[in-house]
Amino acid sequence: MSEKLSTQPYKGTRDFYPQEMRLRNWFFGVIRRVLEASAFEEYNGPMLESLSLYAAKSGEEIANEQTYHFSDRAGRELAIRPEMTPSVARMVAGKIGELSFPLRWFSIPNMYRYEKPQRGRLREFWQINVDIFGCDTYEADLECISSAIRLLRAFGADESMFTVHISNRRFFNDAVAAIAGTDAEGCRRISKVIDKRNKIPREVYVQELTALGLNDAQIARLDALYAMDVTEAAAVCPDSAGASELLQLFDMLGKTGLTRYCCFDFGIIRGLDYYTGTVFEVYDNAPENNRAMFGGGRYDNLVGLFVNNAKISGVGYGMGDVTLENFLQTHGLVPEAFGASCRVLITRFDDVPYETYLALLDRLHEAGLTASVYLGSKKFGKQLDYAVRNGYTHTVTIGGDEAARGVLRLKNLATREETEMAADDMLRVLLADSVSDATAAD
Amino acid sequence: MSEKLSTQPYKGTRDFYPQEMRLRNWFFGVIRRVLEASAFEEYNGPMLESLSLYAAKSGEEIANEQTYHFSDRAGRELAIRPEMTPSVARMVAGKIGELSFPLRWFSIPNMYRYEKPQRGRLREFWQINVDIFGCDTYEADLECISSAIRLLRAFGADESMFTVHISNRRFFNDAVAAIAGTDAEGCRRISKVIDKRNKIPREVYVQELTALGLNDAQIARLDALYAMDVTEAAAVCPDSAGASELLQLFDMLGKTGLTRYCCFDFGIIRGLDYYTGTVFEVYDNAPENNRAMFGGGRYDNLVGLFVNNAKISGVGYGMGDVTLENFLQTHGLVPEAFGASCRVLITRFDDVPYETYLALLDRLHEAGLTASVYLGSKKFGKQLDYAVRNGYTHTVTIGGDEAARGVLRLKNLATREETEMAADDMLRVLLADSVSDATAAD
Repeated sequence: MSEKLSTQPYKGTRDFYPQEMRLRNWFFGVIRRVLEASAFEEYNGPMLESLSLYAAKSGEEIANEQTYHFSDRAGRELAIRPEMTPSVARMVAGKIGELSFPLRWFSIPNMYRYEKPQRGRLREFWQINVDIFGCDTYEADLECISSAIRLLRAFGADESMFTVHISNRRFFNDAVAAIAGTDAEGCRRISKVIDKRNKIPREVYVQELTALGLNDAQIARLDALYAMDVTEAAAVCPDSAGASELLQLFDMLGKTGLTRYCCFDFGIIRGLDYYTGTVFEVYDNAPENNRAMFGGGRYDNLVGLFVNNAKISGVGYGMGDVTLENFLQTHGLVPEAFGASCRVLITRFDDVPYETYLALLDRLHEAGLTASVYLGSKKFGKQLDYAVRNGYTHTVTIGGDEAARGVLRLKNLATREETEMAADDMLRVLLADSVSDATAAD
Repeated sequence: MSEKLSTQPYKGTRDFYPQEMRLRNWFFGVIRRVLEASAFEEYNGPMLESLSLYAAKSGEEIANEQTYHFSDRAGRELAIRPEMTPSVARMVAGKIGELSFPLRWFSIPNMYRYEKPQRGRLREFWQINVDIFGCDTYEADLECISSAIRLLRAFGADESMFTVHISNRRFFNDAVAAIAGTDAEGCRRISKVIDKRNKIPREVYVQELTALGLNDAQIARLDALYAMDVTEAAAVCPDSAGASELLQLFDMLGKTGLTRYCCFDFGIIRGLDYYTGTVFEVYDNAPENNRAMFGGGRYDNLVGLFVNNAKISGVGYGMGDVTLENFLQTHGLVPEAFGASCRVLITRFDDVPYETYLALLDRLHEAGLTASVYLGSKKFGKQLDYAVRNGYTHTVTIGGDEAARGVLRLKNLATREETEMAADDMLRVLLADSVSDATAAD
């Protein structure tokens, strides 16, 4: 018994004390409100899934290196979900005959990845997943991108703080083919080099492309794509279906006033095996944190892993809570206070029966106010200190003298004003304070 | 690729499709509202904890048989939390110097237990955990019990549907000692037999108590306790501190109008090693389901596992979501619909530019309404069918003709009324419908 247990949470995970939990509930509340206003519907699945679900879909890195997995007592190979897409594909496949498409679905699941904890990356995190299933055309791509913008704007972010970088995988393939002029296998190899352009030294990049048969002019034509806007880029391979999709998407971004948040970026690829059309990444514009915060795009036929001959396309994005919170902190977008605008502590004295306080508490609750009676019998000063330290905004005090005269003392802890009044008047004052605070918070 | 993956979730876990998720969000929303109104503050901890946390506190059954555990890549022994109490004790201990006691804390974590799935028991579940830390006296016990009653009442349950059975572990020990008249070790052995009274045949029960030295009269005196009310029971050992606590608690339950939900029940023990004072269990009164749904009580010094010389007592309860949902279903307390009262689908025709629909959508969102544009280009009848199947309450239709005349058609899907009007009038009608629906839902 002398060996004490550690009070630290497991590496890369977080404890949410009430203060952090209020931030979290506010944060997820904003997200739910924005997505639900656009008729997105929330779903969730289990934290544990069959390991085979990830082996079938994910890249190697996630399925093998980053996934927490183990066997249950019956020998089932299980994984703690490292992402939501396989689960939601399973769920859509499971009710494919009953669901009425297109679906607008979102979820805010907790998940685990075995990573080295660092800024913006933890082992346990929540990921906001937004997807539209069963719409093959640009409208769904547009809606995904506009919902991401709407989310960030709902937190108070504007175009100076973030930019949505957009490309298209079909356009990417066609542009590579148009410039390289080689067969599908040759293009595939060249694409693999292009995919790591920012991760390898320039000379290695050039060397590898040259080895695959590209000359300096071709490499320069590829380089030029990175500086082009969408019109210039589309002109590189005007017959590409991907180019048409990009032009249509940017046309509509313009017509709906979203162009100021967006740019074309040939460098947005997001891995080679998964996405099939529009791809995008949202960048933080802050100089100290100028990188992709989250992204998404169009993918096809995930549901086909579960059901024969089912072709349900999807487009969506996933946004980690840690990254998004860092963004909000960086740009000063986290409010100082959340939660109930009015919290009332009824202080307690021994010369008044406890049931008197409890009856008053009932009246406060019935009026819809947040209130409690102090638990214990410390001195008045200690009770006031407790109220301040636990986020109460008001105290209500009745001692023997007040009880005898049928009055109470209401103290506003922010202004430190204290006034003697009848219980009915107290309710009126507190309700008025609640309303004005709620208005101020909007 | 021909071998298709299963669409079933892992055994004993649930998929929450939007329909189930709406129920769930309503359900947890009611709980949060009730607890926060009483100034309880929400917290949460990580899903994975060090396995040693459970070995130290829990009974053998939970730590070894029911816990999902495994090692991470660095050899740390981890468990998926099977309960919340060890986590919250760790968190309280971790900030013991900063927190201002008493704390009113609650949490709604998801957790896992390796169980045989059955009615009311799954492998993944959520558990509403409510605790008060740092108050040694009956007021905290009363508040826990009254918050459990308040929760059930908030769902529409009344005293015909549930009963809170209350006892006291100190009283139990004193009553056993008073009747058995033997030493502490003898009482401990007798208590172990009493604890399994309902799980073993009567003759075995009598046999085992006789073997421990009790005569028929003593066994009859024990039996009599099960039929007594609190006043009669307290008279069995009037000098017991536990008897005084019971009398004080029931006195205050009477003064606050809660007696009709409560009864004294000597049979409430809740295991022998953990609770130290008041214990209670909430029973479903439905004949087909007449059993304990959840319970709790007072425990001491959990925090002492982490910090030397720290004595923080706690009183609380944990309520599983599956059990509570079964209770609500049994008593017809689950509403038929939840969520936004007004959901508007803007139907779409090819002879009107898409941006016209998106501009209208923006106006609906700015007015605070839930709305979306139909994704795709199916026939009007199919779009209407889609609206009904996806829970929309209204459709707004603009074809080329309406667009030319600056009007639209608003259809209420419940009444099937369709009216042509201007966009401003539509907003007024929808906002009025939202308000009246919201009022009806209260």
